[in-house]
Amino acid sequence: MRKYYGIIVLLFCVKIGTAQTENSTYKNDSTILKKIADDVMTNGTAYENLRYLCKKIGPRLSGSTGAEKAVLATKKMLQDAGADTVYLQPCMVTHWVRGAKEVGYAVVDNKKIALQITSLGNSEGSGGKLIGADIVEVKTMEELHKLGTAVKGKMVFFNIAMNPTLIQTFSAYGASGVGRRSGPSEAARYGAIACLVRSLASNVDDHPHTGATRYNDSLAKIPAVAISTSNAELLSANIKAKKKVQVFFKNNCTMLPDVLSYNVIGEIRGTTYPEEILTVGGHLDSWDLAEGAHDDGAGIVQSIEVIRAIKAAGIKPKRTIRSVMFMNEENGGGGGNAYAAFAKEKKEQHIFALESDAGGFTPRGFTFGMSKEKIAAIQQWEKLFYPYGVYELRAGGGGSDIQPLADMGVPVSGLRVDSQRYFDVHHAETDIFEAVNKRELHLGALNMTALIWLVSEYGL
Amino acid sequence: MRKYYGIIVLLFCVKIGTAQTENSTYKNDSTILKKIADDVMTNGTAYENLRYLCKKIGPRLSGSTGAEKAVLATKKMLQDAGADTVYLQPCMVTHWVRGAKEVGYAVVDNKKIALQITSLGNSEGSGGKLIGADIVEVKTMEELHKLGTAVKGKMVFFNIAMNPTLIQTFSAYGASGVGRRSGPSEAARYGAIACLVRSLASNVDDHPHTGATRYNDSLAKIPAVAISTSNAELLSANIKAKKKVQVFFKNNCTMLPDVLSYNVIGEIRGTTYPEEILTVGGHLDSWDLAEGAHDDGAGIVQSIEVIRAIKAAGIKPKRTIRSVMFMNEENGGGGGNAYAAFAKEKKEQHIFALESDAGGFTPRGFTFGMSKEKIAAIQQWEKLFYPYGVYELRAGGGGSDIQPLADMGVPVSGLRVDSQRYFDVHHAETDIFEAVNKRELHLGALNMTALIWLVSEYGL
Repeated sequence: MRKYYGIIVLLFCVKIGTAQTENSTYKNDSTILKKIADDVMTNGTAYENLRYLCKKIGPRLSGSTGAEKAVLATKKMLQDAGADTVYLQPCMVTHWVRGAKEVGYAVVDNKKIALQITSLGNSEGSGGKLIGADIVEVKTMEELHKLGTAVKGKMVFFNIAMNPTLIQTFSAYGASGVGRRSGPSEAARYGAIACLVRSLASNVDDHPHTGATRYNDSLAKIPAVAISTSNAELLSANIKAKKKVQVFFKNNCTMLPDVLSYNVIGEIRGTTYPEEILTVGGHLDSWDLAEGAHDDGAGIVQSIEVIRAIKAAGIKPKRTIRSVMFMNEENGGGGGNAYAAFAKEKKEQHIFALESDAGGFTPRGFTFGMSKEKIAAIQQWEKLFYPYGVYELRAGGGGSDIQPLADMGVPVSGLRVDSQRYFDVHHAETDIFEAVNKRELHLGALNMTALIWLVSEYGL
Repeated sequence: MRKYYGIIVLLFCVKIGTAQTENSTYKNDSTILKKIADDVMTNGTAYENLRYLCKKIGPRLSGSTGAEKAVLATKKMLQDAGADTVYLQPCMVTHWVRGAKEVGYAVVDNKKIALQITSLGNSEGSGGKLIGADIVEVKTMEELHKLGTAVKGKMVFFNIAMNPTLIQTFSAYGASGVGRRSGPSEAARYGAIACLVRSLASNVDDHPHTGATRYNDSLAKIPAVAISTSNAELLSANIKAKKKVQVFFKNNCTMLPDVLSYNVIGEIRGTTYPEEILTVGGHLDSWDLAEGAHDDGAGIVQSIEVIRAIKAAGIKPKRTIRSVMFMNEENGGGGGNAYAAFAKEKKEQHIFALESDAGGFTPRGFTFGMSKEKIAAIQQWEKLFYPYGVYELRAGGGGSDIQPLADMGVPVSGLRVDSQRYFDVHHAETDIFEAVNKRELHLGALNMTALIWLVSEYGL
């Protein structure tokens, strides 16, 4: 036996050695994360930056003066955050304009009822002319296909409520969104003259929620408006009661040619592998109805905070970190596409991209669009995140703006937050600064910083 | 070998059998939980009950007419929810009254500045007389002890901010609460004439937060008020700038003799072990400044929802489930004490008690005050809760109202929710119905129902 003793002792030492290294690495990492966390929760500027973006600039739809101002403001914020370099990346963006505010009403058995409506993003309006017709309610796309040309000359009312039993509200949003996304063209296919869409909202209230629709170019582009959920319930109840329901509205929106705009980029150059790039971002554009606080002012100021927090912690990241304010997520994707195209053209080496575009709520996890092996490697950091409320590191998407990178094979991730309140305010005039809680916003920012720092330190 | 075959095969079958039973039990449990969840998220009445409690009744401080009305209203709610029996349990409760609204101002270098103040619960007022003095700021209790009689004839200003780096805000609340809880008596010990306490709030705003203080009966009961966090920052900045800062205020609060009130109890009698009792509750009283929506209207309506949801699911629980609206949690504990005393007197067999008193926010887990073995048994249900956002089942407390039961050895549990927003509104006039989100509230209710049902089915 004696000859094996040495080997056993040796193996034992290696085992202890590894354990000790792992332990001290863990301890070191967790110390750095704590430093970042304490600083963000105490000195973080994300909340005040969000206040500025919401209250001093406000709506920032692509092509608007708000968007232009937001480009300059976030450029300055990135500089103030301490980015080594800050620059604008040109991109062509959608230029849709709402025009004068929509007016709509229903006539129910000869009684006129004012409706809360808002044109769907990217839709064509009625040219300011009042249009009206009997409405036909459908609760699924299949119902419309069944009705077929029976909707000719009428308005189709897509009353597809978000399913309250889906605990992750994004699942309900995705499922119910078919009416908004493709309803107008499908209704046009059968000769409908216009489209009403129940707002994609979790709650029942008086605020219509906008959002982009997508016309099928081979079909007529009929006017399409969202109505508030309370209006949707009202119309539906009257239809159920066999009353005669007509709807009239006029709107003035239209699509103009694309215009030049910018992604705003701030960078900390990596010390050891500067050519390896990590992107962290959100989208700078927001719908014109409100301040775009949760969608996606939150993701913007959190991505700026990543830069500030890393600088404040005195960390020198091994890899290059880029904080990107993407333009035109809401109704075109021009910014995300330009960013990926530029990366491809310049043969940039993108190793990771993270997006925050689910609202500035308490974080619960991250999703990862990458190989199982890479996800498993990241899951080994689980314990490091646990003290900051993040417990779920699982497979899933990144975000719209970084999807073009994902399509090129870049590993992506998305911040996953508590989603219960998001669709109360999403794309509605209620998405304002006051709907965001400072601690929740900063908790998201610190977890994003932690993930970015870990990937910059260890790669993937 | 042959003779062992049978045994091996037998063992194998037992193994499969157990696995199948476990699997089918799990499947059965998860089906029932899904049924409960779908129903609560779709048909739950907690939110509308909360609206009634907040908007039709409002503040419900023990001994007030609001509290009386709340007793009758929740009795009806429990009946409507389908409880087999509903009854009132008498208890003596604290009767503290605020009197006319407080008035306060600071004089900073001869400039008068209005202050936002509110008397601490259970404190004695100035009898409507204006009192004033130089203020002495302390940031810890130790500082006060160091100053000692140097504070004689002055007002002590406890400026103990909640620590923003503590991710669980209840930890920060506990640590910073020493000024409110024992500050007035400690200041009186050294001859101070009155006490100002920085509001226990996570945010900086203009709303003072009240909350109970506890006088030491052997010391003078000096008037004590909370000031808004913005006021606290202002006073502190002026003191730091070496300005002369005096504060004047008058208030009219006083403690009256205890009065009779009630816990409200609704019961579903167990089918198999009716003598084994599970309690689920919150507290019915709330501070007089606001509607007590999160604190603890939420816990009240969730506990009523447990009854409704179990009835709606058509479940016949094996053990008796009691939904209890405890009176007087905020400033005396009369209801919780009476409930436990009654249980003891009647030799009731209490096997479990659950409280929701941390706000109606998205649930993240439950804490358990019971043996490690019992906690381990409960943790085996972890996967059942995961789809509903609850992932943390760990050791910890139950709640103030069920602490007297815990002291008698009853296993207790507390619903743990996302705590980031709670101390923005806690005990302040901002704790109103509008601060509660329906989905978050109902998610808490469904998880409470799930836990209560599992314990009623399997015991502990």
